[in-house]
Amino acid sequence: MTDLSSMDAIRAACRDLPQGDDEAARAAAARQATLTKPPGSLGRLEEIAIFLARWQGRAQPVLERVEILVFAGSHGVAARGVSAFPAEVTQQMVANFAAGGAAINQLAGVAGARLSVIPLDVERPTGDFTCGPAMSETAFIHSVRAGFEAVRADADLVCLGEMGIANTTAAAALAAALFGGAGEGWVGRGTGVDDAGLTRKADVVNAALAFHGGALADPLAALRLVGGRELAAMFGAALAARRLRIPLLIDGFVCTAAVAPLARLAGHGLAHALAGHVSAEAAHRRLLEELGLAPLVDLGMRLGEGSGAAVAVLLLRAALACHNGMATFAQAGVAGG
Amino acid sequence: MTDLSSMDAIRAACRDLPQGDDEAARAAAARQATLTKPPGSLGRLEEIAIFLARWQGRAQPVLERVEILVFAGSHGVAARGVSAFPAEVTQQMVANFAAGGAAINQLAGVAGARLSVIPLDVERPTGDFTCGPAMSETAFIHSVRAGFEAVRADADLVCLGEMGIANTTAAAALAAALFGGAGEGWVGRGTGVDDAGLTRKADVVNAALAFHGGALADPLAALRLVGGRELAAMFGAALAARRLRIPLLIDGFVCTAAVAPLARLAGHGLAHALAGHVSAEAAHRRLLEELGLAPLVDLGMRLGEGSGAAVAVLLLRAALACHNGMATFAQAGVAGG
Repeated sequence: MTDLSSMDAIRAACRDLPQGDDEAARAAAARQATLTKPPGSLGRLEEIAIFLARWQGRAQPVLERVEILVFAGSHGVAARGVSAFPAEVTQQMVANFAAGGAAINQLAGVAGARLSVIPLDVERPTGDFTCGPAMSETAFIHSVRAGFEAVRADADLVCLGEMGIANTTAAAALAAALFGGAGEGWVGRGTGVDDAGLTRKADVVNAALAFHGGALADPLAALRLVGGRELAAMFGAALAARRLRIPLLIDGFVCTAAVAPLARLAGHGLAHALAGHVSAEAAHRRLLEELGLAPLVDLGMRLGEGSGAAVAVLLLRAALACHNGMATFAQAGVAGG
Repeated sequence: MTDLSSMDAIRAACRDLPQGDDEAARAAAARQATLTKPPGSLGRLEEIAIFLARWQGRAQPVLERVEILVFAGSHGVAARGVSAFPAEVTQQMVANFAAGGAAINQLAGVAGARLSVIPLDVERPTGDFTCGPAMSETAFIHSVRAGFEAVRADADLVCLGEMGIANTTAAAALAAALFGGAGEGWVGRGTGVDDAGLTRKADVVNAALAFHGGALADPLAALRLVGGRELAAMFGAALAARRLRIPLLIDGFVCTAAVAPLARLAGHGLAHALAGHVSAEAAHRRLLEELGLAPLVDLGMRLGEGSGAAVAVLLLRAALACHNGMATFAQAGVAGG
C-alpha cells in the first residue's frame, strides 16, 4: 500500500516513481522495423506502439482493459460568475453520465472503454480560493486517495476526465501557480463565457495568486489551495497509474493542469502520459508545451469529460492493430525489409 | 449511366455535379444545438456530423457501409531511380493486401470498413512521362472507369487509397501541373529516398513539365499525361462518389493530387470530400491548402494505402456516436440548453 496519509507522504510517493521498461520498448521498436512498410512511415502510430510497450512492459501491448475515469467536483469560485453555466449543472451532468446521455458515454462506447464516474462531494463546493484554501489538508488527501484508489492494477490504459462548473478557473490558477504569469495568460472561455466573464476569470485568478502568494511555490500545496476535488483526484489517479506502470492518457486543460504537479515534483513524473488532444481552451497548448507533451489530436474540442482522451484511444487502437497484426517482410515475401 | 467514354465525356461529367443536402445539414446543426454540451464544444466532431448529414442527405447520418478502395498501379518513371524500393514491391504489396498482412488491412479492421484492393494492370507500367504520355487516352479512360465503377451506390462513406512504387513522383508532377511551381517545391522523400534520390525526383518532374508544356494546362490531360493508373482510378472514384452524393475521405499526397483535378474542373468539385490526414510527405500540406482542405489528423504518417483515411474513419465514428447517441438538454434535465 502506498502511504498517502499526509501531504509529506504524498510528496514522498511522487518522488519514488518507477521507470518504464526499456527492454520491452526496444523489442517493440525492433518489431516495427520488420513490418511491411517503409521504416517510420506510420509516424506517431509507431511511437505510440513503442510507448505502450514501454509502460505495459511487453513488446506487443494490448488494450483489452481501457478505463476512463471521470471525476466530478464543485467549486466555491463558481459563485463569482466565472462560468456560462450555473453550478447545479455539475450534478445534473453526473446524472446524465449515469443515464448514458453525455458525450463521454458515446465516446467510451466507440473507444471500447469502461467508463467510471466518481463524484467527489459534489453537493459541497470547495472554498472560494480568492480568500482561503480551496480544500483543507484532510479534504485534499481524501480526494487524492479517491483518485488513486480508482485505478485498477489490471488496467491496460487509464484515461482521465473531469466535470466541474468553474473548474477551468481553478485550472488556470493552478497553471499560473506552477508555471508563472498572470491570470490573463491562463484563462480562456471554458464552456463559453463572454468578454466580461473572461475578465472576471482573470481577476479571480489574480486575486488567488495575490492571496496565497509564496504558499503556491510548492506544487502540491498549489493543487490544494487553488485546485478542486476532481483535480486532486486526477492527480491521485495519475500517481497511481505511474506507480503501477500503467500508461496514462490525459485529456484537456483542466486534466493537464491537475496532473502537472507530478511533473513539477519529479522531473519525469509524467513520462507515462500521452496527451490525448489539445483543446480549444486558449492556454492548453501553452500548458502542454511547458510539460513537453505533444497532443495526438487537435479537433478544437473543449468539452472535458475525458472526451479528448477517449477520441485518442481510437488512435492507440489503430497503432496497436498495425503493430500486432501486420506481416513482416519475411512473412509476406516483400522486398526491402 | 454516366458517360465516361471519352475525355470530353469525362470532362462534362465533372462539370455536372450535384450539391449536398442543405436541409439535412440544417437539421443536423439544429440537433447539435440541443445536445447536452456547451455549443460548439465538440469542435470538428460537430462539423463532421453536419458534413456527413449534408452528403448522406439525412439529419442523423450512419457509417454502416464504409468502403476503403485501394488502387494499385505501376509507373514507368520507377526506372529512373525515384523510389527507395524496387518496382516489384507494388505487386508484392498487392499480394500482402490479399493475405491481410498490410497496415491497411489492420486499419480497415479497426475502422469497421470493407477493404477492396483493385490492381490496375500492375504488370504493365505506365509510360515514362519525362518523354511521352503516362497513359494513352484509352488506358486513361479505362482506369477512370475502373475507379468510377468501384464505388457502390449504397456506401455510406468512400475512402481512397493507393499503392504504386514511384507514385509520389507522379503526384508531384501532377501537382506542379495543376498549381504551378517547379519540381523542387512538390517532391518529397516518399518511402524514404536519400538526398540524391530527392534531386532525381525533382529532375524527373521538371523534365516532365518541360516535355509536356502547355498540354498540362488542362487538368484532365495533366492527370493522363503525368499521372498513373491508380491516380486516374482514384479520380474516377471521387467523381462517382460525388455524383452519387456519397461523402469521400481522401488520404495522403498521392490521393490528394489524384482527386485535385476535380476541384480544378469544377470550383466545388471536392465539396463532398474531407481530408483524412496530412502526411509527412513535404508537399501534402501545401496541396491541401491549395484545395482549402483542413486535415483531420496529423500524425506524421506517410505510408499511403489509404492508411490516413482509415484512421480518420475512427474520428467520423466518434463524431456520429455523439451526434446520434447523446441526450438532449430536455431529455437529461440539464440546465442551459
